[in-house]
Amino acid sequence: MTDFNPIMEQAYEAFLSYQFCSGRKKKAFLYAIADALNALGEPLLTTAAEETHLPVFRFEGELARTCYHFRAFGDLVEEGSWVEAVIDKKDEDRKPLPRPDMRKMLIPLGPILVFGASNFPLAYSTPGGDTASALAAGCPVVVKGHPAHPRTSALVARAIRKAIKDCGLHPHVFQLVEDSSFEAGKLLTQHPRTAGVGFTGSLSGGRAIFDYAQHREVPIPVFSEMGSTNPVILLPDALKIHAEEYAKAFAGAITQGVGQFCTRPGIQLAVESPDFDRYIHMLAEALAKKKVFKMLHPGIHDNYTATLSKALATKGVETVFHADAPGYLEAAQTLAKVRGRDFISNPQLHHEIFGPFSLMVVCKNMDELKAIWKNLAGQLTTTIIGTEQELIAHASLIDIARNIAGRIVFNYIPTGVEVANATVHGGPYPAATDARFTSVGMDAIKRWVRPVCFQDCPDDLLPDELKESNPLGIMRKVDGVFTR
Amino acid sequence: MTDFNPIMEQAYEAFLSYQFCSGRKKKAFLYAIADALNALGEPLLTTAAEETHLPVFRFEGELARTCYHFRAFGDLVEEGSWVEAVIDKKDEDRKPLPRPDMRKMLIPLGPILVFGASNFPLAYSTPGGDTASALAAGCPVVVKGHPAHPRTSALVARAIRKAIKDCGLHPHVFQLVEDSSFEAGKLLTQHPRTAGVGFTGSLSGGRAIFDYAQHREVPIPVFSEMGSTNPVILLPDALKIHAEEYAKAFAGAITQGVGQFCTRPGIQLAVESPDFDRYIHMLAEALAKKKVFKMLHPGIHDNYTATLSKALATKGVETVFHADAPGYLEAAQTLAKVRGRDFISNPQLHHEIFGPFSLMVVCKNMDELKAIWKNLAGQLTTTIIGTEQELIAHASLIDIARNIAGRIVFNYIPTGVEVANATVHGGPYPAATDARFTSVGMDAIKRWVRPVCFQDCPDDLLPDELKESNPLGIMRKVDGVFTR
Repeated sequence: MTDFNPIMEQAYEAFLSYQFCSGRKKKAFLYAIADALNALGEPLLTTAAEETHLPVFRFEGELARTCYHFRAFGDLVEEGSWVEAVIDKKDEDRKPLPRPDMRKMLIPLGPILVFGASNFPLAYSTPGGDTASALAAGCPVVVKGHPAHPRTSALVARAIRKAIKDCGLHPHVFQLVEDSSFEAGKLLTQHPRTAGVGFTGSLSGGRAIFDYAQHREVPIPVFSEMGSTNPVILLPDALKIHAEEYAKAFAGAITQGVGQFCTRPGIQLAVESPDFDRYIHMLAEALAKKKVFKMLHPGIHDNYTATLSKALATKGVETVFHADAPGYLEAAQTLAKVRGRDFISNPQLHHEIFGPFSLMVVCKNMDELKAIWKNLAGQLTTTIIGTEQELIAHASLIDIARNIAGRIVFNYIPTGVEVANATVHGGPYPAATDARFTSVGMDAIKRWVRPVCFQDCPDDLLPDELKESNPLGIMRKVDGVFTR
Repeated sequence: MTDFNPIMEQAYEAFLSYQFCSGRKKKAFLYAIADALNALGEPLLTTAAEETHLPVFRFEGELARTCYHFRAFGDLVEEGSWVEAVIDKKDEDRKPLPRPDMRKMLIPLGPILVFGASNFPLAYSTPGGDTASALAAGCPVVVKGHPAHPRTSALVARAIRKAIKDCGLHPHVFQLVEDSSFEAGKLLTQHPRTAGVGFTGSLSGGRAIFDYAQHREVPIPVFSEMGSTNPVILLPDALKIHAEEYAKAFAGAITQGVGQFCTRPGIQLAVESPDFDRYIHMLAEALAKKKVFKMLHPGIHDNYTATLSKALATKGVETVFHADAPGYLEAAQTLAKVRGRDFISNPQLHHEIFGPFSLMVVCKNMDELKAIWKNLAGQLTTTIIGTEQELIAHASLIDIARNIAGRIVFNYIPTGVEVANATVHGGPYPAATDARFTSVGMDAIKRWVRPVCFQDCPDDLLPDELKESNPLGIMRKVDGVFTR
């Protein structure tokens, strides 16, 4: 077993200086990481492909996205308004007592521990959004490397270390722990210097890490992004008019990345009708045209096979299409259907089946559909497919959607998570352990910071973000008014 | 034992409508609460005084503050920008895929459970900042009434119910549970409809509630504001020049509310010097001039007596002043001193002693002072007293301060927590269970909300906050730029 004490103490040492790193300097660092990752080029893409059984071209996109999020966070911290500076000026005349001068801003928490996912060895793992957002916040990062792609992680770590050196930062601003044991994750989470945790993966893993963190003498924030079935509601007119188009789109969404996307549409609900039958038929046909691919690793493959078999054997579940997938690690894309009442009475069908599978729930009417939908557990996404007219006629569906999910998608597939300002990748439990945050997009930085208030601090001693003259020119809330 | 199921189901029923209440309507409601509380007048003040053994005039101030925070939250939600609307517009031309339209805002979590404190039966209890901020967010509130002031809580609940009726809101937007058992708190925290918890009180109580919440099948956010010693650093020149003024001010801060303030300065550190000796002498004299008062209830009094006796009996601790307090519930204001090395070796001295007590820590030099300070647990506040020149000479002290506390006070007493935009009342554990939030001030509302993202939602179906035309005229971040 690795001795984690020096690792976390070094991360803390790095924090003592890195927490004060200016936005400009952090931008240079984050851009340098993007450049160094990009410079890894072909060997990185082929290594990731070898370790995941995914095609090389997929990693061209994933690398571009990963470089983009480092640069986007670089831009965010250079601009500087993300610290949410709030200033209430002194009021000598207030009765009965003068009001003091109070100024607050967000500051970094400390060393952040990152557990990456196996399905995106770049975008959601060692150089993923957790790492990028924590480094942007001013927090050193310790990544527990995912055992499914050690060589990819080692290449990435080399690139980040190069960026650290080129930027003259503390060498332990980033560390990769190459100990794949379960115990390693536990001990790193429990270490007193660990100030927060980002996790992407299964419900059982994410919950275990969350529990270790909450049982500490000093509990720490954990953002675990876990499972989701991403329910899709298909309204009648849209099914009548656009069945073919959506069948094609959803067949793609179900099989993309061999179904190993946390936003894959795992459940689709509609009221029984010939149009829904036709849609199911078209979707099965579209799935039949897809090639069979290998999954990431034996653990995921075994889990898919086992949970799928159990679902398909459930009373009332009818297999509509099940591909032939005899080879090692191959995943059979599968479509099944079930009546609403059978879905309700079999709670195991409500849980995520991680792989290229989707379950059609045939509801007897809108009331049954709504009752099923609103009783599902928390979701990363939920999708509503309908014509503009029927969306307006069913406006109350949005009231259900917003209470169960972090993101509501209209007339599009839920796979594909934008790195943007408005992104919410999170949601009510078990989509994530804290629905108040997102793990993707610019606000992912908010997981690793806390506010500190300076009361009557001499101007010279204030951080630049809070100085009277606003030398950084950031947006601030001064006496309740936004101003630069 | 009360049956809590109907209570929490009613709170959830109330949530189904109250979550959509407009900012204008919530403002009318919060103002109506302030008016109704104010209208309770003298009977409320005398009841609170009787139940707490605190003077009536104290409740004039506390009631004014309480009415103020309801109105301030009313103004905040009417203005509306607090929902942090963020919009990334569609980009049809983006390659390789068009960018969808994404719009997010904060929405309420659900029914919030509030555990009030005994030391502020108005400002931090039934009508406290937790209740006001949760109602402002759009969350119904269930208060578990504090057993130390049941009549005050009943009066307050009556006023809030009147405001609910006058405003035509769901009758269960606010409920008071008058079951003082420990089990009641546990069961309410564990109830599936409870979506978040606000707690103000002791470390043991706050941690217990936190643990219940994290052990749920679906963990929920808990903000427990717990203990703090609020360490004060006294620099040499300030002690030389201003000893008398600070001795007077700190004697007031130590004894205010019979020492029953969470921001009371419980530890003061300085380097040994004749000036520090003189300050300690003056502080003792100032404390000796203070009258002895009764504490809130026997539990708090017993705890003060016991923890104080233990501290005073600790090796190296010298009692400087200990008032004569023979009567029932009377608290002896007490001053003690200890050498830095004895403080370090006796960890029990590092914990809060809740009552009119302060411990002077005599350090042999600045290095020892810094080492002691930075190894203290998380704090609500920490204070630095120094002339402007020596603050600049010791600028690195601020680096320590910001890593241990939520609020850093310069040259003033830490008691007195402003209800303002820049307020941070929280801090690293054990000051609070999540340093990323505050329980006082406008941002207290952020504890009870989460973001939801609407992707490609037809404009007519968007909440007003996110509509293209910005009908509410709120500040929004559109494509990365703040705009109304």
